[in-house]
Amino acid sequence: MIVALAGGVGAARFLEGLIRIVPQREITIIGNVGDDTHVYGLHVSPDLDIVTYTLAGIVDRGKGWGLRGDTYHCQDMLRKFGFETWFNLGDRDMATHVYRTEALAKGKRLSAVTAELISRMGLHVRLLPATDDPLQTYVSSRGRQMHFQEYMVKLKTRPKVDRVIFRGSESAKPTKQVLESTERAEGVIICPSNPIVSIGAILAVRGIRQALKKTQAKIIGVSPIVGGKTVKGPADKLMRAIGYEATALGVADVYKDFIDTLIIDRVDRALAPDIECLGIKAIAMNTMMRNLRNKVRLAKAAISEINH
Amino acid sequence: MIVALAGGVGAARFLEGLIRIVPQREITIIGNVGDDTHVYGLHVSPDLDIVTYTLAGIVDRGKGWGLRGDTYHCQDMLRKFGFETWFNLGDRDMATHVYRTEALAKGKRLSAVTAELISRMGLHVRLLPATDDPLQTYVSSRGRQMHFQEYMVKLKTRPKVDRVIFRGSESAKPTKQVLESTERAEGVIICPSNPIVSIGAILAVRGIRQALKKTQAKIIGVSPIVGGKTVKGPADKLMRAIGYEATALGVADVYKDFIDTLIIDRVDRALAPDIECLGIKAIAMNTMMRNLRNKVRLAKAAISEINH
Repeated sequence: MIVALAGGVGAARFLEGLIRIVPQREITIIGNVGDDTHVYGLHVSPDLDIVTYTLAGIVDRGKGWGLRGDTYHCQDMLRKFGFETWFNLGDRDMATHVYRTEALAKGKRLSAVTAELISRMGLHVRLLPATDDPLQTYVSSRGRQMHFQEYMVKLKTRPKVDRVIFRGSESAKPTKQVLESTERAEGVIICPSNPIVSIGAILAVRGIRQALKKTQAKIIGVSPIVGGKTVKGPADKLMRAIGYEATALGVADVYKDFIDTLIIDRVDRALAPDIECLGIKAIAMNTMMRNLRNKVRLAKAAISEINH
Repeated sequence: MIVALAGGVGAARFLEGLIRIVPQREITIIGNVGDDTHVYGLHVSPDLDIVTYTLAGIVDRGKGWGLRGDTYHCQDMLRKFGFETWFNLGDRDMATHVYRTEALAKGKRLSAVTAELISRMGLHVRLLPATDDPLQTYVSSRGRQMHFQEYMVKLKTRPKVDRVIFRGSESAKPTKQVLESTERAEGVIICPSNPIVSIGAILAVRGIRQALKKTQAKIIGVSPIVGGKTVKGPADKLMRAIGYEATALGVADVYKDFIDTLIIDRVDRALAPDIECLGIKAIAMNTMMRNLRNKVRLAKAAISEINH
């Protein structure tokens, strides 16, 4: 069993390669729920949906999220009703949130709802929310705390962030499946996601970082920072904001207590010696996932390192 | 102030005529909430919405409900997720239910939410739910009770009904505005709606029938039964089911303890003497609302009878 810790778009693209070389039933994905939020009263799980839609082949590839060819008729009406509509929800996409909200209201756990959605989409991977408990990622900017989605989507990452806060992390527990999967894994992959807020919100769930330190499995990270910049999203800004350098070396630094190997982009190969000084093996290769061939090659590198 | 008791499509068409001859701000509509239900966890108020969409000029005129030109993308996805989708909700229509559900969840009363929707639609009538408390219309068929929407929409009124039950009617209270409006009304119109389930669910709210008996205002009914048949919906079946004859005379019988005048269709003019025997004035005219001129003429007849 391969376990992958995943955020949103970067992880989903990596996983598209992984499912070509590892049978879906042998893949367990631990997903980030820190970005979850309520939009018009509907429970939205952006990262879980990005992974699901991408692996189901129905994601809007241009944006990396939402459903391809979706319409926005419901949201257009909601705007007329005076709702803020900065969080884009398409009509087909909305079905997922309506379904999830209804199921949670009836007392189902997020894990169960997520498993149902995965199955309805014809997928066979296991997608596990890191926790079934409330956990929300907030950032603080000049003393004001805002939900990560407000910072990311509404304010387009413009505010200067001083701090990242995982609300609920004192009490959120990992699910039993999450702990079991890391314990039994043959290999663990930290997908190329934001180390601070996406992977960070998974690691903020008490016990998960500890489980990664304890597991016998090899742990391979893929750096989302290439040439000192994030490929997508605010990973670089947030790394700097909380005192890391926004480089592949910085990524190694965030993960240094549990990863064995970090795959970095070939443009960063000069950082390899410094990464190895942290006790982490560095593999430099093309990590840009522009097409399926790139994705498969990257996944193969991670798997071959696990089997090494 | 003119007060109108209203169900769905028939009432909405009548009210389209009424707003042409009475300023909207002088019209208070008491709406039926017995048909309200939860669809995918969303609070749907079919009759309130039919009235609102019709008066706003955005209703699907062919069907009499829903929004003109609406799409069904969200519902198509929900069907794929395994939901029963016999209750049709368009994408734009869904915005209303999302809005209402969210507002109710935040603790707003249905009256307040309805007033907001009316205002967002640019309307100036007052639309008052008969009650803010739970009240649901069920029918019983061969011992099985089913929600009125299941009977009406899913089973297309096929089951033989033995009984109509208003769940919650023991405890549902009319809102203060409903009681005040009937007390202060210059005239009350019972729109051409189903006397048993639509107007019936309004009258089932404790105190409303009493208020109608007490009011000084003239009360004018419009028969929804023409030539022994309902124009739309199952009014005729349900009248027979609970022991009334399905004629304009039967309608007079249902309302006999509070109406002064019943407007019946000219094809039913032979029933006028029997209706007058119940102490109710009968006015026979064309009541078919095929175009705006018909609707206005019908509304004028009701208003002139109030002023008579």
